[in-house]
Amino acid sequence: MDNKQFVTQIADIEQNFAQWYTDVVLKTELVDYGPVKGTMVIRPYGYAIWENIQKDMDSRFKQVGVKNAYFPLLIPMSYFSKEAEHVEGFAPEVAVVTHAGGAKLEEPLAIRPTSETIIGTMYSKWIQSYRDLPVLINQWCNVMRWEKTTRPFLRTSEFLWQEGHTVHASEEEAMEETIKMLNLYREFAEETLAIPVLTGRKTEKEKFAGAKATFGMEAMMLDGKSLQAGTSHYFGQNFAEAFNIKFLGKNGALQYGYTTSWGTSTRLIGAVIMAHGDARGLVLPPRIAPIQVVIVPVAAHKGGVIEKANEIKDALVAKGIRAFVDERDMSPGWKFNEWEMKGVPVRVEIGPRDIENNVAMVARRDNLEKVPLSLDGFADTITALLDTVQKAMFEKSKKNRDARIVEADSLEGILQGVDNKNFVRANWCGCRECEDKVKEYAQATARVIDENATADGVCAICGKPAKHKVFFARAY
Amino acid sequence: MDNKQFVTQIADIEQNFAQWYTDVVLKTELVDYGPVKGTMVIRPYGYAIWENIQKDMDSRFKQVGVKNAYFPLLIPMSYFSKEAEHVEGFAPEVAVVTHAGGAKLEEPLAIRPTSETIIGTMYSKWIQSYRDLPVLINQWCNVMRWEKTTRPFLRTSEFLWQEGHTVHASEEEAMEETIKMLNLYREFAEETLAIPVLTGRKTEKEKFAGAKATFGMEAMMLDGKSLQAGTSHYFGQNFAEAFNIKFLGKNGALQYGYTTSWGTSTRLIGAVIMAHGDARGLVLPPRIAPIQVVIVPVAAHKGGVIEKANEIKDALVAKGIRAFVDERDMSPGWKFNEWEMKGVPVRVEIGPRDIENNVAMVARRDNLEKVPLSLDGFADTITALLDTVQKAMFEKSKKNRDARIVEADSLEGILQGVDNKNFVRANWCGCRECEDKVKEYAQATARVIDENATADGVCAICGKPAKHKVFFARAY
Repeated sequence: MDNKQFVTQIADIEQNFAQWYTDVVLKTELVDYGPVKGTMVIRPYGYAIWENIQKDMDSRFKQVGVKNAYFPLLIPMSYFSKEAEHVEGFAPEVAVVTHAGGAKLEEPLAIRPTSETIIGTMYSKWIQSYRDLPVLINQWCNVMRWEKTTRPFLRTSEFLWQEGHTVHASEEEAMEETIKMLNLYREFAEETLAIPVLTGRKTEKEKFAGAKATFGMEAMMLDGKSLQAGTSHYFGQNFAEAFNIKFLGKNGALQYGYTTSWGTSTRLIGAVIMAHGDARGLVLPPRIAPIQVVIVPVAAHKGGVIEKANEIKDALVAKGIRAFVDERDMSPGWKFNEWEMKGVPVRVEIGPRDIENNVAMVARRDNLEKVPLSLDGFADTITALLDTVQKAMFEKSKKNRDARIVEADSLEGILQGVDNKNFVRANWCGCRECEDKVKEYAQATARVIDENATADGVCAICGKPAKHKVFFARAY
Repeated sequence: MDNKQFVTQIADIEQNFAQWYTDVVLKTELVDYGPVKGTMVIRPYGYAIWENIQKDMDSRFKQVGVKNAYFPLLIPMSYFSKEAEHVEGFAPEVAVVTHAGGAKLEEPLAIRPTSETIIGTMYSKWIQSYRDLPVLINQWCNVMRWEKTTRPFLRTSEFLWQEGHTVHASEEEAMEETIKMLNLYREFAEETLAIPVLTGRKTEKEKFAGAKATFGMEAMMLDGKSLQAGTSHYFGQNFAEAFNIKFLGKNGALQYGYTTSWGTSTRLIGAVIMAHGDARGLVLPPRIAPIQVVIVPVAAHKGGVIEKANEIKDALVAKGIRAFVDERDMSPGWKFNEWEMKGVPVRVEIGPRDIENNVAMVARRDNLEKVPLSLDGFADTITALLDTVQKAMFEKSKKNRDARIVEADSLEGILQGVDNKNFVRANWCGCRECEDKVKEYAQATARVIDENATADGVCAICGKPAKHKVFFARAY
């Protein structure tokens, strides 16, 4: 099978990005559709990416004092009603258990769409005094939101995520935590996923149901649409009042705590696919690639080739590299194409002549360059190369993202900007009506407020004095 | 607070083991009750044990070629009916989603009690040829079985577990996998949890719903009851036929695969508590202890004590030891008691006089011995000590277990044996009626068949020729 045949397995990335995405996630065996509408099966190749994401992010959490725990899946429906905006936001999407153990339940139970309510209930029991604060707990779990339109990783009825929930003695400390976790997400996205993000406060319209303030990180996808890749919420005392989370302060007075929550999900895998992919398929950043280096023996039947391939693999594995020798009975060309489609960052080709010359051919997935490299100190060379690839992917992605930020001072300008696949930065008065107009006219939404910039004129939509500069974009 | 006060917080382990267990799991903050009956919240100290269990067991899985994946939580109810015994076994315990997204569902959905049916459905789609075999997939997830009587970790409506599901081309290979995973579990229990186990085939009465054969591992708890700590099932072609898992064999014929499944759960935490605990509370094996070494400064206000404590901690952490300095403003005695209750394997006490003498007092939780040890090469000393403690805990537990195996040749003898908190090994004819009689007369069940022994006489219950030697015990 030649390269062309392989490429024709997946739709043209320029012509039909949505189909390209679907083809890639299915054909690389990241994912499959589950039998219940809107559900996905995360297959081993996809789940290994999630494991690498978890491991990296979890160690960042632990470095800032967050501990993991596990709270129940099922939440009494009545809990949602305790916070008015929260129930309005989530009730329509909830899956409900009405029967269990062969009998009808007295109270229907929701499968968690998010866990503020049940975690808040436990916190009210655990927290007595300022000495118990801060509480910094995270859980890795499955959640369920019944969605009408679903796509693997991007929007599914069940997905995997982490949700952190913290309680603090003061507003300042809670807000500081909210921003700290937003920045942790940004660093993770940039350093580990090689994806540059815009971070900032969400508008009132776009914030989380029940939050005082939501901060988000937005990543530009190759089709010009933005993907919300993580959020961090400051609740003030909203949930503390609804769930009676009180503590005896240093001053001897009983008072409500200040809470936050923050989450990222398997959606991050979708972000990686759509930020880095190309016509041939996946391009995975080394830090999360299940296989970082694939070694393909050439003329494998010749004496010593398989042995040399495995010797190279062992040397790489000893350096902590996830390496794999593809010994299957297929042509090298077929294998090259398959591993390109699967996005393996570095491919090593080794044949009898290479062995003679003490080199191996080394191909980078990100820029498709292929060069012979000496087998002396090969594992160190490859370690450095993986680091180079990781950084190059970020730089390329950042360059692309930076070129996709334009300014506009009119509704028409916003439309043109998003039509041209950009983030459009515009002055905004702060009112909901103007956001609605942008949605109607340009099918775009306010992604985040640019907190590094000051409004310097009038609202691009209504012409009244501007309060903020906002990034508008079409979004997933 | 003196030691006595602490101990009186938890019930007497000799007088009321059940209450001791409940007190220990709640007061050490391993767990709390969730708001929905039968659910538990796994608190950070308990979840950290689970994380250590996962990390260790998962690396063992990966060493034998098993990969992780994730399958949906919700399973169409109709799937259970495809395997007759399976539906009979699980339907009564299932929690059912009838409504979602604000509407009634066309078909009710079960929250997975186990995933053979949905995984089988996906396997039938993925497997075409013998080249696709074996399939060796595991998932770490939550499952739900609606139980009437529940206890934290031991039996809860929702619990966390891993379930491995494999498909093979032949009966021999599938049976080999079943036994290989049983042995992996046994090694894990013995090496990591320091718990000796009896392994063997389950009787027909006790096997998994839908299996051709179930193999289990049983651990003796301090109260003389056995705990089933893991199972491995051989399904033959039962599930392959029910879910149409077929492959084109090397011989060119289309044939059904042979499947297995194997699982362990958060129940393992209950096993650790009840196999190693004592009057003062938890005794945790070093390999899974969230904190392996707690360092308690004595006369902490004196210059240099806190600094030395942290210096010791840093040296331990550098060796990969999970160490913690307890700097809280409480008396050393109070801290000693608390960390004993929480089962921390090694406690280091460091005060001004110790520093002068270049020693630290080192107390072992498992045997309560306390000795001064030189601070020279201290991290190496402690590394070796943790290993010693791990081994000593296993040896002690094994000695206890071995002393709890007795023989009986009558129903009365079985009753006496289990009354005296033993595994009772007896000849057995192999019939269900005799198992039922043991259950009625002695409130005991057949735990596993002793596959290392040959029946050598008549059934202890009915007097007919014996087929097997079986271990009977009261059980959780």
